Amino acid sequence: MGRATDRRTVVRVDLGGTPTVRRAPDSLSAEEPLEIRVGPAGARRAPLAVTMRTPGDDLDLAIGFLLTEGLIRYADDVYTAQLCAGDQETNTYNVVDVTLAPGVPAPATDPARNFYTTSSCGVCGKASIDAVRTRSRFDVAADASTVDARILVGLPGALRERQRGFAATGGLHAAGLFTVDGELLCLREDVGRHNAVDKVVGWAAREHRLPLAGHVLMVSGRASFELCQKAWMAGIPTLAAVSAPSTLAVDLATEAGMTLVGFLRGQTFNVYAGSQRVRVPGADRLPPVVPRRTGAPSTATAPA
Amino acid sequence: MGRATDRRTVVRVDLGGTPTVRRAPDSLSAEEPLEIRVGPAGARRAPLAVTMRTPGDDLDLAIGFLLTEGLIRYADDVYTAQLCAGDQETNTYNVVDVTLAPGVPAPATDPARNFYTTSSCGVCGKASIDAVRTRSRFDVAADASTVDARILVGLPGALRERQRGFAATGGLHAAGLFTVDGELLCLREDVGRHNAVDKVVGWAAREHRLPLAGHVLMVSGRASFELCQKAWMAGIPTLAAVSAPSTLAVDLATEAGMTLVGFLRGQTFNVYAGSQRVRVPGADRLPPVVPRRTGAPSTATAPA
Repeated sequence: MGRATDRRTVVRVDLGGTPTVRRAPDSLSAEEPLEIRVGPAGARRAPLAVTMRTPGDDLDLAIGFLLTEGLIRYADDVYTAQLCAGDQETNTYNVVDVTLAPGVPAPATDPARNFYTTSSCGVCGKASIDAVRTRSRFDVAADASTVDARILVGLPGALRERQRGFAATGGLHAAGLFTVDGELLCLREDVGRHNAVDKVVGWAAREHRLPLAGHVLMVSGRASFELCQKAWMAGIPTLAAVSAPSTLAVDLATEAGMTLVGFLRGQTFNVYAGSQRVRVPGADRLPPVVPRRTGAPSTATAPA
Repeated sequence: MGRATDRRTVVRVDLGGTPTVRRAPDSLSAEEPLEIRVGPAGARRAPLAVTMRTPGDDLDLAIGFLLTEGLIRYADDVYTAQLCAGDQETNTYNVVDVTLAPGVPAPATDPARNFYTTSSCGVCGKASIDAVRTRSRFDVAADASTVDARILVGLPGALRERQRGFAATGGLHAAGLFTVDGELLCLREDVGRHNAVDKVVGWAAREHRLPLAGHVLMVSGRASFELCQKAWMAGIPTLAAVSAPSTLAVDLATEAGMTLVGFLRGQTFNVYAGSQRVRVPGADRLPPVVPRRTGAPSTATAPA
């Protein structure tokens, strides 16, 4: 049974004054897939949708989803809704099984009118990560590129400066593709953050630049599983976000061997995965996010 | 052919000092559905996905989407990609028709593994709005409730104060259901803003509170088409957001007769639709967002 937040270790970098680097615990918003299955009483419940959500209040989520998408009309249209563990995994509790009341028609599943879900959603976080691994043809873990922390802290400003749509409306997400030297190659804005990333990757594909080895993708908001997936599929070794990543984004980045940077604001940022790609002036190689040997939970690594 | 931003009229309310109310033009981020159709050369292209996006770079979006979802492996897997106007509407340009190169298999359309899209996505904004109208059984336009501007400006603080997950992680969206007197009835947090709203609506449905007449739904981020749709489906007359709404959110709220409030920060906010429900102390009834008669584009309506 999931929790709304979970703990991970991060490496905190602060370039204000004398640069400091330290490993510390951090609370992240939990992200896990939820599969909603629907069917009439006595018949097989068919998968209707998979949504990436924060665990908790899952029965409300399923009933609210069915209502607000117009698939049922009343709460009483649902006879039972059960949170269950799925077919393949134990203790994931990422499936809600909805049995409709007698006489309520099962929702039509028109393939062109289905719901959220990417092709990489599994019935648990691990299955979702495995689905991306199966599809990606690029080994980002082997990407030997590194990026200077001073370049990283300059990216949000470089992105914001060029966000014409955001400046006008305050309502557009941005994705920017940078070289490790901080050169902006492509910026796209969209109401959907996944669309902004797809537009950047589509541009790069048409320019025959895939895989995007040695590049940094900077996003204006949060880093979700889906954005990490898209970066991996394009062969991007480093994803940086202005705001927080989710647990599943961190887990996917860790599995992929990607570098994931979050809370990139002012002179500071957190490294959630792949710290070996980040160089801090005057400091030794960054400690790994997950210690290779069991040691103190928080290790201060003062740079020389 | 769409643009990334579009202009709308808003009513600006500022309670700092002597309350002021004025009608003014505003730039909004454009939101329109894009249908991606895919098929082999010579055969019919089948609808694969509908995504709500900001128009522009749509071919890149389609190619990037197919690549990052693992449905094609190379840009050369696409033989042609054409932006076209769709079957039913003229000049919408909300369809990308992708013809695959010879030998590239068409993506499987497993109903349980499809893509974004809600059941209310049409091939243009108008069709999307019509789809919601057909489904909603509540007449929010007839909801005679009003809300005091002083209550509205207190909602973001009331929401933030109770956002335990956001306080811990900085990475969770919130949706809160309030009475018009500012009493918080239900707060839910989630990595997905649509999930947070579904959890609130599912709770209300199980409590037999639908339609949520005379209530205000407050969301922590931006207001998209999808959030307005969910509010309408639950019979909520007033939706308020901390950040910007999209064009299609405003159009849907206007069609529904909903009140849509955005940029609710400090002592100020914008009303994008349904201004008749907002009461400002010392001021006359708010001017309608869209003037009933053609007049000056920006009318200062100083309160008494």
